Amino acid sequence: MHNQLREHIEKIIPLTDEEFAFVSSHFTAKKFKKHQFLIQEGNPVKHSYFIISGLLKLVYTDEKAKQHVVSFAMEDWWESDYYAFFTQTEATMSLECLEDTEVLCCSFEDYKNLCNGLQKMERFFLEKATFGFLGSQRRIISWQTSNSKERYNQLLKQYPSLLQRVPKSLIASYLGVSRETLSRLSS
Amino acid sequence: MHNQLREHIEKIIPLTDEEFAFVSSHFTAKKFKKHQFLIQEGNPVKHSYFIISGLLKLVYTDEKAKQHVVSFAMEDWWESDYYAFFTQTEATMSLECLEDTEVLCCSFEDYKNLCNGLQKMERFFLEKATFGFLGSQRRIISWQTSNSKERYNQLLKQYPSLLQRVPKSLIASYLGVSRETLSRLSS
Repeated sequence: MHNQLREHIEKIIPLTDEEFAFVSSHFTAKKFKKHQFLIQEGNPVKHSYFIISGLLKLVYTDEKAKQHVVSFAMEDWWESDYYAFFTQTEATMSLECLEDTEVLCCSFEDYKNLCNGLQKMERFFLEKATFGFLGSQRRIISWQTSNSKERYNQLLKQYPSLLQRVPKSLIASYLGVSRETLSRLSS
Repeated sequence: MHNQLREHIEKIIPLTDEEFAFVSSHFTAKKFKKHQFLIQEGNPVKHSYFIISGLLKLVYTDEKAKQHVVSFAMEDWWESDYYAFFTQTEATMSLECLEDTEVLCCSFEDYKNLCNGLQKMERFFLEKATFGFLGSQRRIISWQTSNSKERYNQLLKQYPSLLQRVPKSLIASYLGVSRETLSRLSS
């Protein structure tokens, strides 16, 4: 499954076999079952995860104990509580499997060693961070400009498979609408 | 005013005089008057801007010709239509001065040359992109979890000076509330 990581990185930057061996040595594979937590609120965040297969939800729980889906993460995505990861503080979000999931784990130490040891990887992470920022900005604009029906249709178009894989209550949470509103939209 | 750029970069990564001379050679200073546009929708986006002084609004105009303030940019911020900048496509947003503004301009070519010529600058931009992503994610969570009054109070706390410098109609647009709602919140 490290091949999948190589293909993923090489969409942005080509690597020699030697370079990929170096990259690969900074990751460890791990499997999780549906409902298992990779990150729990209040705990240290030790890893950034590259998802080989499966599906996860990143969830923020507000003061009234209401859960909000911040993002879904699936094959070929990177996910973590990145604020906690980069600042090495405790998680304010949780990351939980919605399906059985296989990931490659990269610790903060290994992330830094990768950037320091191979400039190409720093370039790769810069590209990922830049487009992560642009994706979030697009989502903010979509909150500002679109009503819930439009946001639902955008999500459908962007991730057609998501609706088959995720309960509607979670889609509603991601879109910031009630379960009842979503039922009206999707019927 | 290049000293301000040096101080800004050195908050993240120290530079020698020689390195900073190299960095500095990739920027050109420019002044704009209140109401002038740095970027106009539909035009090519040639530069990323580091703001020395002044205040700008980044605006997205929807299909109904309604304007939405995506962000405000002030001293020590970087701003552009970054999707268009990084993909070298036409602007979908506009960037307009709310005050007389001084900026340092960096072209896409110079941005690439900076990253290729000095690994420290790639590290700097990686840090900026990462925390730009985290800031946007926090804003998404705030849309999901907070009502307009709470979002207004968060903005007040984060940028106390903004309310003195920006018309209320723009604050309302940034928060995604009507001007009338904002008047109720701020009275």
